[in-house]
Amino acid sequence: MAQKIRTRVTKMLGIDHPILQGGMMWVSQPGLVAAVSNAGAMGILTALTFETPGGLARAIDETRQLTDRPFGVNLTFLPTLKAPDYGGFIEVIVEKGIPLVETAGRNPEPYLEAIKSGGALVVHKCTAVRFARKAQAIGCDMVSIDGFECAGHPGEDDVTSLILVPRTVDEISIPVIASGGFGDGRGLAAALALGAEGINMGTRFVATAEAPVHEGIKQALVKADETNTTLVMRTLRNSERVLRNPWAEKVLEKESEGATLPDLIPLLKGEHGLKALRDGDASHGLLAAGQVVGLIHDIPTVAGLIDRIVDEAAGIMGQRLPGMLV
Amino acid sequence: MAQKIRTRVTKMLGIDHPILQGGMMWVSQPGLVAAVSNAGAMGILTALTFETPGGLARAIDETRQLTDRPFGVNLTFLPTLKAPDYGGFIEVIVEKGIPLVETAGRNPEPYLEAIKSGGALVVHKCTAVRFARKAQAIGCDMVSIDGFECAGHPGEDDVTSLILVPRTVDEISIPVIASGGFGDGRGLAAALALGAEGINMGTRFVATAEAPVHEGIKQALVKADETNTTLVMRTLRNSERVLRNPWAEKVLEKESEGATLPDLIPLLKGEHGLKALRDGDASHGLLAAGQVVGLIHDIPTVAGLIDRIVDEAAGIMGQRLPGMLV
Repeated sequence: MAQKIRTRVTKMLGIDHPILQGGMMWVSQPGLVAAVSNAGAMGILTALTFETPGGLARAIDETRQLTDRPFGVNLTFLPTLKAPDYGGFIEVIVEKGIPLVETAGRNPEPYLEAIKSGGALVVHKCTAVRFARKAQAIGCDMVSIDGFECAGHPGEDDVTSLILVPRTVDEISIPVIASGGFGDGRGLAAALALGAEGINMGTRFVATAEAPVHEGIKQALVKADETNTTLVMRTLRNSERVLRNPWAEKVLEKESEGATLPDLIPLLKGEHGLKALRDGDASHGLLAAGQVVGLIHDIPTVAGLIDRIVDEAAGIMGQRLPGMLV
Repeated sequence: MAQKIRTRVTKMLGIDHPILQGGMMWVSQPGLVAAVSNAGAMGILTALTFETPGGLARAIDETRQLTDRPFGVNLTFLPTLKAPDYGGFIEVIVEKGIPLVETAGRNPEPYLEAIKSGGALVVHKCTAVRFARKAQAIGCDMVSIDGFECAGHPGEDDVTSLILVPRTVDEISIPVIASGGFGDGRGLAAALALGAEGINMGTRFVATAEAPVHEGIKQALVKADETNTTLVMRTLRNSERVLRNPWAEKVLEKESEGATLPDLIPLLKGEHGLKALRDGDASHGLLAAGQVVGLIHDIPTVAGLIDRIVDEAAGIMGQRLPGMLV
């Protein structure tokens, strides 16, 4: 497909289309990431999925065997007691010449200098305008801003992408990537209209042929409509948007009974979600999913999906919208 | 300003720009409505503000003295014991030849035939895809779909405009008007990109020179940011998005203590909000406000606002977006 969509983000990253595949625990593995990059968008591996710096290095090598296009690495800074070896991950990122690091979770400031020493650009995931301002101030190169509709952790402010994207664009000068609620060409065109220079997609990439996820989970995303997600852990001020399955209902019930974090931990363990992704039982564990599930109706290849999104967006941007002007 | 934006909605309504000023209790009065229509958009009076059919008739006459452009009337069907004189309001609407009726609240089916007997088109406000399908099935001419970010009643599904608009567009063939979260040209362009054929604005029109609201309230909207709204009455399954003021905090506190509707009624009475609108004390009563308050920074005239929105949208639709295509 000859059509490309050019923004500051595509120029900075050397990609054809302003679409990033956001880092997803367990899902962002070499096969999917390479497919995204080969399709002209930006694939992103998740460091924590590979547990050790050595594991990340092997995943990077494996991805490089599958694509010669740029791809990135996600580094999520968790508030855990037993911290992962972030220094080791960063050494690998620098050594391998990774061009983009997506940071998420806590403030990445302590790690920024090290990450950028190898020339990587940093896009920080934010859930509020104040965090985006901070990200720019500390030297991040782009901001990815997550609306209330996103999968995973939207923060506690409940502000939607429709408001958060233009608000963030008004407050910072580095490029803004809209994240949360995007899955088709209409969404891409809308994000660019709102002032973003790219979109981040997660849930939509899970329902692709290349996602390393059991078919049963992909089918569950296709079946779900936009009302089939819910926020859990609101009572712990650590809200997470997940598929509304019996497991999530159980968490909500315990929360309504006043459960504390220690009470909930048995239900929240990541291994449950991982089991679901592997076995295909969408009722088992918490499965991060955004409201965009309502717009997911098939399981295309990644290349097919990107082509379709770009074609649809280009039709809107080049024809539908200019054609409305009199 | 010469630029116009044409969609099925502008053609059906005979207006220049696909912007509707949604019916707002107490606010949608002749001066504001006429200003909106004179600016090439669609002003809408709220029938219940005028209490009786005679009051509505006088308001229509007053508006006609101020504009020869089309304007509409909002009819909100409340689940109250002492029902307003809907039959009488509809007689006035028919007699006066009102071209557009915005219905809201309960299913308008029992009243549709009467409303349409005078030739009026009907746009029904919906908060979910299933209601939009129903609205089309019973013969409504357009649907206005309210996202989670909207002022007032978004329903209980918490689906945002970014998802709800394209989902609704995919399910019905009559025009969809995006409502909830819109206040500038970026939002208008985004709505049209998502497949809507117009936008509905409420909160943004309250902060205009012509809105019949105390300056103190307009200033409160300018000062508020996107995190300064909240949903109240979630526990009663009658969620309403309002400005997060001490009054709203009090309602939330009582809800968290398990208050029932009778306990809350003294706080919910509309007269408190009306007092605030008149006296300018934004801490008094519940004041409906959408998350778009974060994008409101001034109090322009209605004509200035519409011109600015259309200019900005036209720039995005005619230049920014086509210019990104390579």
